[in-house]
Amino acid sequence: MKAARLHEYDQPLRLEQVQEPEIIDPTDVIVKIGGAGVCRTDLHLIEGVWANTLGTELPYIIGHENAGWVHEVGSSVSNFKVGDAVIVHPVMSCGLCLSCRSGEDMHCENLKFPGLTVDGGYAEYLKTSERALIPLAENVQPEDVAPLADAGITAYRAVRKAAPLAKPGTSVLMIGMGGLGHIGVQLMRELGNADIIALDVDKQRLNMAMDLGADYAVQANNQMISEVRNLTKGQGVDIIIDLVGTDKTHADSMQMMRKGGYYFVVGYGGTVKIPSLDIINNEFNIIGNLVGNYNDLYELMQIHARGKVKLHSTKYSLDDANNVLNMLDKGQINGRAVLVP
Amino acid sequence: MKAARLHEYDQPLRLEQVQEPEIIDPTDVIVKIGGAGVCRTDLHLIEGVWANTLGTELPYIIGHENAGWVHEVGSSVSNFKVGDAVIVHPVMSCGLCLSCRSGEDMHCENLKFPGLTVDGGYAEYLKTSERALIPLAENVQPEDVAPLADAGITAYRAVRKAAPLAKPGTSVLMIGMGGLGHIGVQLMRELGNADIIALDVDKQRLNMAMDLGADYAVQANNQMISEVRNLTKGQGVDIIIDLVGTDKTHADSMQMMRKGGYYFVVGYGGTVKIPSLDIINNEFNIIGNLVGNYNDLYELMQIHARGKVKLHSTKYSLDDANNVLNMLDKGQINGRAVLVP
Amino acid sequence: MKAARLHEYDQPLRLEQVQEPEIIDPTDVIVKIGGAGVCRTDLHLIEGVWANTLGTELPYIIGHENAGWVHEVGSSVSNFKVGDAVIVHPVMSCGLCLSCRSGEDMHCENLKFPGLTVDGGYAEYLKTSERALIPLAENVQPEDVAPLADAGITAYRAVRKAAPLAKPGTSVLMIGMGGLGHIGVQLMRELGNADIIALDVDKQRLNMAMDLGADYAVQANNQMISEVRNLTKGQGVDIIIDLVGTDKTHADSMQMMRKGGYYFVVGYGGTVKIPSLDIINNEFNIIGNLVGNYNDLYELMQIHARGKVKLHSTKYSLDDANNVLNMLDKGQINGRAVLVP
Amino acid sequence: MKAARLHEYDQPLRLEQVQEPEIIDPTDVIVKIGGAGVCRTDLHLIEGVWANTLGTELPYIIGHENAGWVHEVGSSVSNFKVGDAVIVHPVMSCGLCLSCRSGEDMHCENLKFPGLTVDGGYAEYLKTSERALIPLAENVQPEDVAPLADAGITAYRAVRKAAPLAKPGTSVLMIGMGGLGHIGVQLMRELGNADIIALDVDKQRLNMAMDLGADYAVQANNQMISEVRNLTKGQGVDIIIDLVGTDKTHADSMQMMRKGGYYFVVGYGGTVKIPSLDIINNEFNIIGNLVGNYNDLYELMQIHARGKVKLHSTKYSLDDANNVLNMLDKGQINGRAVLVP
Repeated sequence: MKAARLHEYDQPLRLEQVQEPEIIDPTDVIVKIGGAGVCRTDLHLIEGVWANTLGTELPYIIGHENAGWVHEVGSSVSNFKVGDAVIVHPVMSCGLCLSCRSGEDMHCENLKFPGLTVDGGYAEYLKTSERALIPLAENVQPEDVAPLADAGITAYRAVRKAAPLAKPGTSVLMIGMGGLGHIGVQLMRELGNADIIALDVDKQRLNMAMDLGADYAVQANNQMISEVRNLTKGQGVDIIIDLVGTDKTHADSMQMMRKGGYYFVVGYGGTVKIPSLDIINNEFNIIGNLVGNYNDLYELMQIHARGKVKLHSTKYSLDDANNVLNMLDKGQINGRAVLVP
Repeated sequence: MKAARLHEYDQPLRLEQVQEPEIIDPTDVIVKIGGAGVCRTDLHLIEGVWANTLGTELPYIIGHENAGWVHEVGSSVSNFKVGDAVIVHPVMSCGLCLSCRSGEDMHCENLKFPGLTVDGGYAEYLKTSERALIPLAENVQPEDVAPLADAGITAYRAVRKAAPLAKPGTSVLMIGMGGLGHIGVQLMRELGNADIIALDVDKQRLNMAMDLGADYAVQANNQMISEVRNLTKGQGVDIIIDLVGTDKTHADSMQMMRKGGYYFVVGYGGTVKIPSLDIINNEFNIIGNLVGNYNDLYELMQIHARGKVKLHSTKYSLDDANNVLNMLDKGQINGRAVLVP
Repeated sequence: MKAARLHEYDQPLRLEQVQEPEIIDPTDVIVKIGGAGVCRTDLHLIEGVWANTLGTELPYIIGHENAGWVHEVGSSVSNFKVGDAVIVHPVMSCGLCLSCRSGEDMHCENLKFPGLTVDGGYAEYLKTSERALIPLAENVQPEDVAPLADAGITAYRAVRKAAPLAKPGTSVLMIGMGGLGHIGVQLMRELGNADIIALDVDKQRLNMAMDLGADYAVQANNQMISEVRNLTKGQGVDIIIDLVGTDKTHADSMQMMRKGGYYFVVGYGGTVKIPSLDIINNEFNIIGNLVGNYNDLYELMQIHARGKVKLHSTKYSLDDANNVLNMLDKGQINGRAVLVP
Repeated sequence: MKAARLHEYDQPLRLEQVQEPEIIDPTDVIVKIGGAGVCRTDLHLIEGVWANTLGTELPYIIGHENAGWVHEVGSSVSNFKVGDAVIVHPVMSCGLCLSCRSGEDMHCENLKFPGLTVDGGYAEYLKTSERALIPLAENVQPEDVAPLADAGITAYRAVRKAAPLAKPGTSVLMIGMGGLGHIGVQLMRELGNADIIALDVDKQRLNMAMDLGADYAVQANNQMISEVRNLTKGQGVDIIIDLVGTDKTHADSMQMMRKGGYYFVVGYGGTVKIPSLDIINNEFNIIGNLVGNYNDLYELMQIHARGKVKLHSTKYSLDDANNVLNMLDKGQINGRAVLVP
């Protein structure tokens, strides 16, 4: 089959013919890819940022945001049959360890992560397991929802954790109105009740955020800290969801948060630095957020099926993978790009 | 009356005669001090660490960890009468703002903090308000419990927040077995169900921690990180409660914590620094902790009245205030020192 | 002043001239009534249903759903001045007991409940305390929001407790689309994410419920149990909020609820009867709900100020009190009636 | 193999030779029984109380509280090998439905319940699945812990849900000091911080409860309601855990509970009856409790391995099954009886 593989860090992917994946375990499922979302983490993988943390041997196929149709199933797969349209939760979890038993697939002790630790979805076919699959509602096309499998549930997980704090009369600052941000704003509107302040450098993205349910838009610049504080009677916001994660967004966030506030870190790349006197005197809470679990994806698909979350995405051919990654790196993708094989 | 006042930063307190406090508001209460605990924050106040944050005008009386007897009451005080033995919650909160209405006295919008922003308890008498008082159980002497008013509830608040995470089979690392730590270990034993690992540089304090309910003691040194990881099958602890708060304890903590772990910052002075990649990949949670609220103090006094928490304290004369502060600075106080006027 | 007083159970109120209330405590506030909502509990009070539980001496003024303008303030009242437009939380709580300290005003140990245990708001003036007041947003008229002070926060409290369970993909059945129900549906739409099934005997009310955000409307009749089960793939709803509370709604509810379901009892009058085998085998949860607390009212007013909850109410003269109570008894009031003095 | 089977309701079990269970699914595991606990539910099964609810075809082997050694494993079983000592969670859950995915094995949509819906453990061998197994700590014998598999986790689940409410200064009433009760008291002492009031008709059991950590013992009689209220300053207890579940314990409980109280129903057989006026006016909460899930059992085994819960049990031969069931029915078993094949 055709696939885009990472052979060398900081080099373009190679589009090439590779062996199709094969069923080995009774719970294995082969999915014919309908669409694979293009994520900033794919850029980080190519740059080698994750090389030490993951230690995955090159070459391998990247792509962890997948949807498609069931193509072949292992002998014990009972809930899916060939042809079923599915979205693929990004990891293969064992279902037996304590983390799995309490629903936290991402902390599975025997985790396989297609696109990061084994072959992923920039290809015609993907191997995953029955535990990773969620059936699509009728009339939903895989290529239209693929980005929900990672961008979507990552935003969902952070917003779901923040929502109980987002009571009427509180305010939430959401930093970065790109792939995750434009979903996040809609989810916060649905799951929470805080006033939503969207922050971005780009005016067009801020307009989109307002259309999607933000209450205020603030452009990232020198006045933004005082602007955000003014919107909250000088006290700062109750909640920040940082979908960018640079040194600057980390530092600025500490200046815009109210006593007892919660800072949800989703985007990454920078370093969080803060004197512990400030942490304790303000009772700040800094909360890390990884990809959502299976139940997060199930719930997100329920919201999506009711038409309450709209995904901005553009389809490209798998052959254009390197091109699309370049565009993402240059900030030229609005919403999310999806590769169709 | 006699009082120890801070006239100049980085200078000894002056023991001198000052005006007694007077009832002005109908909810005011004058407490005759039975004992005032000596806290590391008192050292920080003298050093001027809090000068900018608080902006309190000098001179003033420090001391925020107080217990004694009701001496005089305002016209609307209904629950206390002269002579009642009481422990004093450290702040005067308004009872009307949203923070007060949800029990969070420390976040009161109209907060007065005796010993930090107005005159405190290194004196014969202290002015506070009815809302700050909790009656002592029979046979409990004020000078024996004064440290519960601040050291106690600060440890209580952190442990109370951590306890729901401290499920059977988990582990908690408690850093620093001094004034807060020796109470904290006992509270974790009572409120939580994790295996408790006590960490300190001092062997004697570690022995005390084991006597008070710790399951393991680890001496702070070069091997401590691997030692803690070994105690947790290489995975790190689920929870850290850092009662010290230096650059080193902040950095080390990040090396000893498990995926999904919670780091409760209680001690302060250093700077927390951590790449956001580590925060998100591990889903770390960093939680600031201030002094406990009134209900925390109420609950702590219930535990104390049932004999489940023992306080290690030594009494000194108020006249020795500067001496005692010196000893604390040099690490010569075990448990907590209490000044008796 | 003019007031409607209850002199004898099961008899009409007497419209008569009475003494105006007077400031006694420094925290007392006299409110000039702008509007007083008419509640089913007022019928129950007149019928004597509450006589034993409350033991209030007759005659007294009923009316516990009040809004108006500050008319006179006690000496220590600091947050309000004469002329301020306010909504009045239904109870005067002490602010000092443990319940108050954790925000639960309704469980105050020293509770006074104007309209139930002391004189209420079917009058020109009402005495309450500073702790009960919330300022109105500009341009909001007291008579337009009075029903939020009791019907509103009672619905709010139940929905707020249910909301964390109302995850995407779950379903909630709301029984009774009257005064509380039409607010409750809107609040569930704002605070929760379940599919909302509205149930009532009246078609017109069901249409209104659909307009206000319900996803399905079911008319109360012989088929309703199977109809509700069909809407949930035969499994029953995850959550029921029963705003009616008769023997029949209690019994029917047990037939329409899913394993692990939550039954929120708000309306009252009947008896809940259920074999404990069914309770344990289904892990049912039955949750009582009283009037909301101060923070509930604050949050509700925030939602209202943002235009997200619309109140259906009709104004009547205080002189018509008995008439209006009759209409309510006969089911002739849609939404809520408000008496204007 | 030898087994005790239920052939007819209200008749003794038949001790007879039956076919050994066989591995069919790749996740199946055959466990050689070390011990099978005898539970009141076994009496209810024989009486036919569950006949309609379950619809299990007779004859079949009862016994749902099992521990032993792995005897044979299916082809995909990876975490256990022949000879491993294990305790068996009572149900075989699918691991794929939403309930399983959030840890709630008991609500699995594809549940098999050995001893209730398929053959159980009153036998030499039992078929279950890998998902049901937890390895025993070294030196722990299966026959010594079998009752933790059902009595233990049922008590654990109720106590675990109650524990966050059992704050210092609160009180909990535990009704019934038999098989579940004597474990429950110890768990409440470990997991909660309330004052524990044990209630039973039997003095000897009350003495045992005091030895195991109860703070007060109350004998069930005419004065018990006032006695319990006196222990709580007339206000009633904050929490009741009812391990008996008769009409009488249900009715009495409503008289002994404080405003805002929680009533955890664990024992069953009677009917809960309460006017909704009382439910709402007191904001009572009535919470059903089924057997605990896998994680509950894991946590319980952690507590047990640390020596913090002691099980009172007596071993009998499987041949004596009918005899032992008779003794249980007559209240002649203290703690728990275990059948050894």
